[in-house]
Amino acid sequence: MAILSALATEVFIPVAAVIGIAFAVVQWVIVSRVKLSPAAAAASGGGGKNGYGDYLIEEEEGLNDHNVVVKCAEIQNAISEGATSFLFTDTKSQPCTYSKDKYCKPALFTALFSTVSFLLGAITSLVSGFLGMKIATYANARTTLEARKGVGKAFITAFRSGAVMGFLLASSGLVVLYITINVFKLYYGDDWEGLFESITGYGLGGSSMALFGRVGGGIYTKAADVGADLVGKVERNIPEDDPRNPAVIADNVGDNVGDIAGMGSDLFGSVGIIVCLITTLFATDFFEVKSVKEIEPALKKQLIISTVLMTVGIAVISWLALPAKFTIYNFGTQKEVSNWGLFFCVAIGLWAGLIIGFVTEYYTSNAYSPVQDVADSCRTGAATNVIFGLALGYKSVIIPIFAIAISIYVSFSIAAMYGIAVAALGMLSTIATGLAIDAYGPISDNAGGIAEMAGMSHRIRERTDALDAAGNTTAAIGKGFAIGSAALVSLALFGAFVSRAGVTVVDVLSPKVFIGLIVGAMLPYWFSAMTMKSVGSAALKMVEEVRRQFNTIPGIMEGTAKPDYATCVKISTDASIKEMIPPGALVMLTPLIVGTLFGVETLSGVLAGALVSGVQIAISASNTGGAWDNAKKYIEAGASEHARTLGPKGSDCHKAAVIGDTIGDPLKDTSGPSLNILIKLMAVESLVFAPFFATQGGILFKYL
Amino acid sequence: MAILSALATEVFIPVAAVIGIAFAVVQWVIVSRVKLSPAAAAASGGGGKNGYGDYLIEEEEGLNDHNVVVKCAEIQNAISEGATSFLFTDTKSQPCTYSKDKYCKPALFTALFSTVSFLLGAITSLVSGFLGMKIATYANARTTLEARKGVGKAFITAFRSGAVMGFLLASSGLVVLYITINVFKLYYGDDWEGLFESITGYGLGGSSMALFGRVGGGIYTKAADVGADLVGKVERNIPEDDPRNPAVIADNVGDNVGDIAGMGSDLFGSVGIIVCLITTLFATDFFEVKSVKEIEPALKKQLIISTVLMTVGIAVISWLALPAKFTIYNFGTQKEVSNWGLFFCVAIGLWAGLIIGFVTEYYTSNAYSPVQDVADSCRTGAATNVIFGLALGYKSVIIPIFAIAISIYVSFSIAAMYGIAVAALGMLSTIATGLAIDAYGPISDNAGGIAEMAGMSHRIRERTDALDAAGNTTAAIGKGFAIGSAALVSLALFGAFVSRAGVTVVDVLSPKVFIGLIVGAMLPYWFSAMTMKSVGSAALKMVEEVRRQFNTIPGIMEGTAKPDYATCVKISTDASIKEMIPPGALVMLTPLIVGTLFGVETLSGVLAGALVSGVQIAISASNTGGAWDNAKKYIEAGASEHARTLGPKGSDCHKAAVIGDTIGDPLKDTSGPSLNILIKLMAVESLVFAPFFATQGGILFKYL
Repeated sequence: MAILSALATEVFIPVAAVIGIAFAVVQWVIVSRVKLSPAAAAASGGGGKNGYGDYLIEEEEGLNDHNVVVKCAEIQNAISEGATSFLFTDTKSQPCTYSKDKYCKPALFTALFSTVSFLLGAITSLVSGFLGMKIATYANARTTLEARKGVGKAFITAFRSGAVMGFLLASSGLVVLYITINVFKLYYGDDWEGLFESITGYGLGGSSMALFGRVGGGIYTKAADVGADLVGKVERNIPEDDPRNPAVIADNVGDNVGDIAGMGSDLFGSVGIIVCLITTLFATDFFEVKSVKEIEPALKKQLIISTVLMTVGIAVISWLALPAKFTIYNFGTQKEVSNWGLFFCVAIGLWAGLIIGFVTEYYTSNAYSPVQDVADSCRTGAATNVIFGLALGYKSVIIPIFAIAISIYVSFSIAAMYGIAVAALGMLSTIATGLAIDAYGPISDNAGGIAEMAGMSHRIRERTDALDAAGNTTAAIGKGFAIGSAALVSLALFGAFVSRAGVTVVDVLSPKVFIGLIVGAMLPYWFSAMTMKSVGSAALKMVEEVRRQFNTIPGIMEGTAKPDYATCVKISTDASIKEMIPPGALVMLTPLIVGTLFGVETLSGVLAGALVSGVQIAISASNTGGAWDNAKKYIEAGASEHARTLGPKGSDCHKAAVIGDTIGDPLKDTSGPSLNILIKLMAVESLVFAPFFATQGGILFKYL
Repeated sequence: MAILSALATEVFIPVAAVIGIAFAVVQWVIVSRVKLSPAAAAASGGGGKNGYGDYLIEEEEGLNDHNVVVKCAEIQNAISEGATSFLFTDTKSQPCTYSKDKYCKPALFTALFSTVSFLLGAITSLVSGFLGMKIATYANARTTLEARKGVGKAFITAFRSGAVMGFLLASSGLVVLYITINVFKLYYGDDWEGLFESITGYGLGGSSMALFGRVGGGIYTKAADVGADLVGKVERNIPEDDPRNPAVIADNVGDNVGDIAGMGSDLFGSVGIIVCLITTLFATDFFEVKSVKEIEPALKKQLIISTVLMTVGIAVISWLALPAKFTIYNFGTQKEVSNWGLFFCVAIGLWAGLIIGFVTEYYTSNAYSPVQDVADSCRTGAATNVIFGLALGYKSVIIPIFAIAISIYVSFSIAAMYGIAVAALGMLSTIATGLAIDAYGPISDNAGGIAEMAGMSHRIRERTDALDAAGNTTAAIGKGFAIGSAALVSLALFGAFVSRAGVTVVDVLSPKVFIGLIVGAMLPYWFSAMTMKSVGSAALKMVEEVRRQFNTIPGIMEGTAKPDYATCVKISTDASIKEMIPPGALVMLTPLIVGTLFGVETLSGVLAGALVSGVQIAISASNTGGAWDNAKKYIEAGASEHARTLGPKGSDCHKAAVIGDTIGDPLKDTSGPSLNILIKLMAVESLVFAPFFATQGGILFKYL
């Protein structure tokens, strides 16, 4: 039926992945041309003044990374052991559930393959996070150096580095998954059910690592950031990223650990590589960004171009590669879907993503009235700033939720749960671009930090600040994509779980389901309480240490003595590793406890409740934090008549804005982005353990 | 089967109501013995200094009240017209749904009776709010005067006044409902279905008024409070409630309008009057509060005593008045329930309420570590204070949600949806006590304001502050009860709606339901964004006016010129009336739009989503706000070694605590407590319109 042969499709996927990796390598070579030799650093004017412009970042980040790896490996072992042990109870071949006259591979081997794919997912996620971090640290200083030549050069370097990461991660995720599936197929043959059951482990492995990356990284970076700001900016009145601040290195390391590594391990794998590749060229080669004003539009154009090209690309693929009609199974009934119907599912996910991106931009960019209103509310102090910022975040939820709801309804109507999975794929198809513009933010932020620390001129810092302001918005857009796609992915996984657990109806009127729903809706609050408190406590420790150093090390404020950076890095490292255990345990253990004690019905309720409640908190937290950050930058930049009445730096308005910015840090970089992993991970874990819960679960209700 | 005859039961209810009213009158007479003559005011020492110690409050509150009444009446007319017009389409007698061989009264007459009961509900709610406000304003100044004699006397006066309100409201709600049911029964005879359908209008009427009372009142009071604090405390460094502050009268009026009237119209009607009556005597007559330390335990004892007595009372009533076994109908199936089963349903609701009360106390009283930790975090500024406060609110959700979930599961297992309704009744059975200790808070707060304005000595203010600190905790406990019972009531109403609309299953796996669920979970955010923004905007206007008066009226800071209080009152009044329309419309229109366009399945999803999401935000917002308020009071009071290291008033820590307190104002007094009305009102409105939605609704899906 399909115009392209199956073979051609089989070839297309690895080729796209290889092209993506090749593209990433090319971009990397271009970035690497920016030389980081000591001579170049000296040429920057003040680079030699403090003498620690670049090497420290490379040195410290390795330390932290090692600990995370060890910790994660331990947890991963515990899980895979658990997964294996219970699956060992079942070793016979059994009739396939989709066709009773066929025999499927025994569960024992599927368990083994699941474990292998779990490990592969975990490793890919870890490697993605690690590579992202390496690329980002490689790019930071180079962006700073390019900023001396102008804002356009700096933008291209930061954006190219983001692209290296976006393409490398999207492609490597795809390659590993492709190879895994093909190797597993050698054993499974036409036993599709067994094949895909074993492959679910890949998602669980990836999400587990991502959870610890996001939570641990989020605590790490924000403990350092909040701690550094509270003493440096508020008490000592020294600028952000000033090398005299003992926590400044921990802060810069944190940007890489939390924002890049967490994100990288969260979002890997996509098929829209070729389209995103062409899109990237629009930013780096076809046009050039010349002034500060052009930065945000250039990034915004990236989203539009990739979405439009992707729509055309999907239409072509649907026409060439898919049969005109095919049949899907939906809870026991059959449903016929046309290739154009499926195209429509992908397209609606794709465009819903674009809408979420634009709404996020509107609510977090200081080019529009919402952030300007928040900045304006600083006139009456920090309290009104916080009230307006929280209200902004709550309000920013409305349109994304409608976009997600419409995508769900339309794609489900066309192709049931399969349609939702395909819509999620659509939203994620531009992920390489999304990752590129998201990674660009922390890279610019760190470039600014390096400029400050290296004692470069004020103008360089202004340029990197302009890049960074756009970066805050793109980071919020990236988070919007991540949470939107997480909602669709989780719903598809939820559908798969329900189907695999043999649940045909999840009735809210059943008390078993309803108590799951209300407790599930509570989980994101519990989780956020933990992560926010962790950041707060770690920041308090950091503040004490920074204060201690200022008070006890003579000459630190005069710049004649070197602060003890290592102790601050250690505080962040220790806090992140210690504090990520309880929230991680909450997420990992909830499906196991609920499934075992209360059974699949209550677990269905928990998943649905956590999904519908978590999405709201995640979106509002990200946007509130982004808005506060940019409201502060709006006052600092003083680019308009209105902004100048609120500034300058150090005015009462600005102080109120700094308080909002600090509150927003854990919201936008720790609790908010961790929540999408919470809902995805709980869903995929439930899916993996579904057969166990369906047969052995619900102990408590059985004995009551 | 029952030991007590039906006649005895029939007699018991109105008798209890009459006793409750009589008790309220007795308490009122006792409070009224505190004379408010000019001579008494002069005797207070500084009462004549400003010359406007008491009469202004009485004067202004009437103005605002009139506007609210007019506005509410308009909206109520619009709704009742709508309700009537569509019901006019159906005028024939029809077979009863529960028994096809019986004929029930025609829908037209049920519509008329519904309208009448709607009006009665609305009027009772309005009158309850109005009476509550009158009692509170009557009590404020008397509490201040009694504070001269000692903290014990002041406590008893404030608490007695709270009891007047609690008993009057609970009893009058009961009387009106009892009379309505009995009058309606003359027409309906044994047509129970028609009777109870027509009575649902009573709840809708009450909730509608309560919504506008809560939202409008919440905006009113917090605009004044935030506005007064921002200029007075932060900019001009004058104490809270200082008569030189132009917004001070608006603030005091607001306490009555928002906290008392809103609450009064929200929670009226209960059957546990006799038990609560005995409980009250423990606080006012059996024991006497002698020192500040005894205030909180005395209020806490109220909760415990009423719960224990109520449990015994319910056990006795279940044994005497209920048949040993009776049959209930649950979605078409029959279920047999014993009187002890029903007793258990009531008891679990009752004790869940007590648990929620205690958890709330733990998280909002500055006697325990959570609030002390929040106070401690003020060392590092307002940002950490806000982060810790938000985390505290999120964390405080966990146990109440488990308590609610367990009550739901157990009561549903015993007696299906009827069990949940009965559990809700159990939680609300101590409402007279709950209202009394809740109303006690704003009365003490205002008493402090009057002491300040009347220029009384510092010691009097210290006493009222101590009363007020306990009042913050009790207000939070009252809100905890209100939201917990709202969750159970809404779920019971939701069950009734589903049953009446003929929906047998609300399947989360159906996309119609799921999109309702995710959009419903978004509604509390939308609603909170509106109300918080409203408070913020109104507060900004208030700040400008207060600043203008300080800058243009000479002699205002020296106390020689009188500020223009009336303009500030007008700003609050105008803002509350203007700004309560959009959130009110959101709540009122959502069930109508969703039911009409998307049908009963999606509406079921919206109700469930709003319920499970709204409960979390409401609890966390109330507790976060209460904790910030008491963290500030903890620093101000300086009662412990730790507290003294943070203070005194005016220190950097205290300033940070004031910022948190100001942010908490709209959270705990506007958006938080409005949310329980949001979920109740949407459920009861859906219930009233269920037959219409079931037959005519879902237009959009029909044409797609």
